[in-house]
Amino acid sequence: MADPKENLQMEKIVSLCKRRGFIFQSSEIYGGINGFWDYGPLGAELKRNVKELWWQTMTRQRDDVAGLEATIIMSPAIWKASGHVDTFSDPMCSCKQCKKLIREDQWWTMMCEQSWVQSLAAIVEADTNKLNGEDLLKWAKTKGKGLAPNLALVRNPEVTLSWMAEELEKGNPPVDAKEYYQYLATEQRGVTGLVKPCPHCGGELTEPRPFNLMFKTHTGPIESEENIAYLRPETAQAIFVQFKNVLETSRQKVPFGIAQVGKAFRNEITPRNYTFRSREFEQMELEFFIKPDEAIEAIHGAVFTPTPNSQLPAPQPDWGWQAWHQYWVEERVRFYEGIGLSRETLGFHIQTKEELAHYARACTDILFKFPFSKKDETGNVKGDELEGIAARSDFDLSQHQRFSGKPQHVFDDELRQAWAKLPKEKQDDLWRRYYENRRNYLTKSGVEAEPAAKQATDDANALAKGNYVPHVIEPSAGVDRLILALIANAYSESTTTDAKGKSETIYTMKFHPRVAPVKVGVLPLLKNKPELVNKALAVRDLLRPWMNVYYDDGGSIGKRYARQDEAGTPFCLTIDFDTLGEKPELLDTVTIRYRDDGRQERLKISELRDWLLVKIR
Amino acid sequence: MADPKENLQMEKIVSLCKRRGFIFQSSEIYGGINGFWDYGPLGAELKRNVKELWWQTMTRQRDDVAGLEATIIMSPAIWKASGHVDTFSDPMCSCKQCKKLIREDQWWTMMCEQSWVQSLAAIVEADTNKLNGEDLLKWAKTKGKGLAPNLALVRNPEVTLSWMAEELEKGNPPVDAKEYYQYLATEQRGVTGLVKPCPHCGGELTEPRPFNLMFKTHTGPIESEENIAYLRPETAQAIFVQFKNVLETSRQKVPFGIAQVGKAFRNEITPRNYTFRSREFEQMELEFFIKPDEAIEAIHGAVFTPTPNSQLPAPQPDWGWQAWHQYWVEERVRFYEGIGLSRETLGFHIQTKEELAHYARACTDILFKFPFSKKDETGNVKGDELEGIAARSDFDLSQHQRFSGKPQHVFDDELRQAWAKLPKEKQDDLWRRYYENRRNYLTKSGVEAEPAAKQATDDANALAKGNYVPHVIEPSAGVDRLILALIANAYSESTTTDAKGKSETIYTMKFHPRVAPVKVGVLPLLKNKPELVNKALAVRDLLRPWMNVYYDDGGSIGKRYARQDEAGTPFCLTIDFDTLGEKPELLDTVTIRYRDDGRQERLKISELRDWLLVKIR
Repeated sequence: MADPKENLQMEKIVSLCKRRGFIFQSSEIYGGINGFWDYGPLGAELKRNVKELWWQTMTRQRDDVAGLEATIIMSPAIWKASGHVDTFSDPMCSCKQCKKLIREDQWWTMMCEQSWVQSLAAIVEADTNKLNGEDLLKWAKTKGKGLAPNLALVRNPEVTLSWMAEELEKGNPPVDAKEYYQYLATEQRGVTGLVKPCPHCGGELTEPRPFNLMFKTHTGPIESEENIAYLRPETAQAIFVQFKNVLETSRQKVPFGIAQVGKAFRNEITPRNYTFRSREFEQMELEFFIKPDEAIEAIHGAVFTPTPNSQLPAPQPDWGWQAWHQYWVEERVRFYEGIGLSRETLGFHIQTKEELAHYARACTDILFKFPFSKKDETGNVKGDELEGIAARSDFDLSQHQRFSGKPQHVFDDELRQAWAKLPKEKQDDLWRRYYENRRNYLTKSGVEAEPAAKQATDDANALAKGNYVPHVIEPSAGVDRLILALIANAYSESTTTDAKGKSETIYTMKFHPRVAPVKVGVLPLLKNKPELVNKALAVRDLLRPWMNVYYDDGGSIGKRYARQDEAGTPFCLTIDFDTLGEKPELLDTVTIRYRDDGRQERLKISELRDWLLVKIR
Repeated sequence: MADPKENLQMEKIVSLCKRRGFIFQSSEIYGGINGFWDYGPLGAELKRNVKELWWQTMTRQRDDVAGLEATIIMSPAIWKASGHVDTFSDPMCSCKQCKKLIREDQWWTMMCEQSWVQSLAAIVEADTNKLNGEDLLKWAKTKGKGLAPNLALVRNPEVTLSWMAEELEKGNPPVDAKEYYQYLATEQRGVTGLVKPCPHCGGELTEPRPFNLMFKTHTGPIESEENIAYLRPETAQAIFVQFKNVLETSRQKVPFGIAQVGKAFRNEITPRNYTFRSREFEQMELEFFIKPDEAIEAIHGAVFTPTPNSQLPAPQPDWGWQAWHQYWVEERVRFYEGIGLSRETLGFHIQTKEELAHYARACTDILFKFPFSKKDETGNVKGDELEGIAARSDFDLSQHQRFSGKPQHVFDDELRQAWAKLPKEKQDDLWRRYYENRRNYLTKSGVEAEPAAKQATDDANALAKGNYVPHVIEPSAGVDRLILALIANAYSESTTTDAKGKSETIYTMKFHPRVAPVKVGVLPLLKNKPELVNKALAVRDLLRPWMNVYYDDGGSIGKRYARQDEAGTPFCLTIDFDTLGEKPELLDTVTIRYRDDGRQERLKISELRDWLLVKIR
């Protein structure tokens, strides 16, 4: 199983999630399945609310975005065009002794977590320079046998140590701890070089091989090469391949976006951090298609380019990719703020040129400071990725155009007319820049110089006639990560001590009312008074068509409040004798109690619905 | 590709779905992928609405149902316990000549569709009794060569015909057309018996083998037996394996249900009827857990059993499986009625004893009369399945209890107390009946007689102490089928002829407002009057937080109405000069136009939201 115990805070969160039915291990009664997690009753509601809000915000509330719901299994040709078949892989080693699999880039981290390494480290650190053969020999013949029976040093200590001694005489001392541990494992490979030992057993690891992260299956009854299909590793490609269909049926014009929410699958070698990196997950992706900057410049004379800190107005026709990219970063941050993740809980990572794919212009990651997020060298927690907002140029549609042979460009009459009116020098300048961009894309994507130049010429000529392949800004968010962030952010505990000195820990999930699984608890003061119960049921039925209501008549009011606090219900309504008119002026009013501070106030039943709707929308 | 052209009506529907962005072929620009369909902008909204309504109705609006969202890939042990690994298969033949795959149970249907069969049939029917060798020989040497080159009659006509003649002499004339065509294909197998010819090429088909319909993949990097995983072929099993977790975290008690909406996958050999039978589809399933009838009888003295036509009241504690089954059939029919599928468009199929699985007590299928639905022998269209409501006894949880070794029973203190007070004869009677049911389940599930008797004894003893494995009623609906039913039901066309005699066909999608993708179109009378446009935008923004609004200012009002009619938008609002106060008494009113009859009336803007909310909820 993925190890969720990165620290105590995570342990507590995992425990509450299980106990209150937010998240369960998939297939738990069968021992689970590594990297898969289920959402229980509260988790399912939380997740629905988040996805619904995203869809509302990104699609229904906008004129310029259309929705899509595509299949998980698509033509395998798509993943060839997108590059996933060839390059969507992690480097993987396997141990020749214990057969376990290790991601090469996680090898050292895993080494440091093993008890045999820690045990050896004590000896090495005490005496590094002398490379004390005696202590190592002793370790190999005693403790080492149990901890790392397959380590060269343990299997054949004399040979390993004498080879190490020779190396030292040749003036080849290990330069760091990593190399030192490799020395201790060399015997398996003779004395020709260093090998990586297996973190688990000290055995020899194979050379890393690329392991493709896509889950593979076959469509139709024959398991042949031509029937291979993949579970999509991202939802984005479905949007690109349906770009033309959506454009033609939705009355949208560039700039516009296509939004999709759906499952994706990655066969991670080592799923970890609870639901943060799992093998089956859900994405919320928008592909927002824009005109190339050269087209904007042709039409508007110049491309509006914001400064990094400038507040952007509503979208304008002269925006280029930079303004649109910045706009979407801001929109997405506003979304997170709007569901309770304040700016202080978030972090940002602006990808460097080296990190960016060759076709990408920019990518800004929005991070959340999870309990398991590591500190950087300055001691600050930067956070882990919730969402990436990438400016992907015209790479995606261009690839599908090349691989499918189906044109993916759009015709823009405004551009055609504007272009015709430009002075010759301006036309030439724009033509040249567009040509360079297209040629650059083509050659970097593996097209030979000559056909690339020819194709880029055609593309630039097409631009002059009003045709271009749209560029794209991609805000791509992970649902499960966001759910985990919301849970971590909402989690709060406090310990109270009663008069008898007995202390009790109280857990409150402080979800924003917009995402809270249950919006309101309806509680009759007493279970055995039909008038109270009937009134409470009437209040429940009044609110239920509009929001998720939890009716609870079991136990003391205090216990019921505590239960709703743990579920993260922001409001509780109590129906008491005053509701029935014991104090006539309070007839048909209820007590509303706020989860976060226990504050109570009195509200008329007739005003409840609208009062709550304002809070939860 | 799946053949959607069952008839003209289907062709029209498919065409409108593509043209208006309801449904696209998955991966279309790469030639598509058989059995997979995407939902475009309008389809995605329609589907969201349907799923949301189901969830609201089945989960949020009820106290006795909790939600779940489990993974698509689960432990393979689940599919062993459920029986899917061993028996979820179709009989499949392959052609030794053209290698095509044929579902054995579809062979004759496919044969009848082929032109070579139709061509031969003409000869055979003209002259069946004589088995006219001459005409057959002529056909084999001319037409047959092009149509069915691999048919024995064509490849080796003399041998085939002489073998047929021998058979006839022996008094073995073909008994029906099916057998006749088999005669014509015998040469491939010599003269030892009859073989089925391939519908496509006349070649020899292999014997049928079971082909498992689950998509198979591997988790983790090694493609080994122990890493096999399946894409779930149904969402139900995820509910069963999380039964205990949900029970323990949700404060539910039997009777209660767990609801789930999600994707499922079946590797159909021949997907067909557009989206009706596809390889990737979505289900909405409720597993409603109830007490065994013996427990009800122990507690309440008798089990309430309704007559088939009796109107059921709200659920009662003395309901056994029959009442609950009938209740859920009625609830589900009400759901369909509530989204526009009237009882006349639906059909029912009550499964016979022979059709039911050994553990099932009953199953009622709710059918919809699709354009492709076939007529029965009496000429009536019965319809094709939208949903099955099955009474599955305690089979599912019992299987998982046996296979996982984790107890799946619940403890019911009311039962324990009631049991203790029963007279001895009654206890014995209930004990015996429960014992027989349990033993029956166990032996039919492959447990040997002796251990089955022992286990059943333990189970009956446990019942006497208040413990039982819950029974289950399962309303299981297909989302995609329902979407197709809603589209087929909404589709309407009418042809108008204008003054010049030019006729035009108008398409209207008469969706119920609850499911309609767009609820209201907001249309300024003129695009070039800022006052009208601004007012219209204000109306759009007023309504948008509450429903899906489409703003449209392009083209004549008539054109815009027609566009919304095709999209199925039930209401359009027009903002005109009266809205701005040209007639002072009409200030801040709009014209609302009804899609289905074109009726128009005037409404105040301030009342719009509530007026519409009542209609669309």
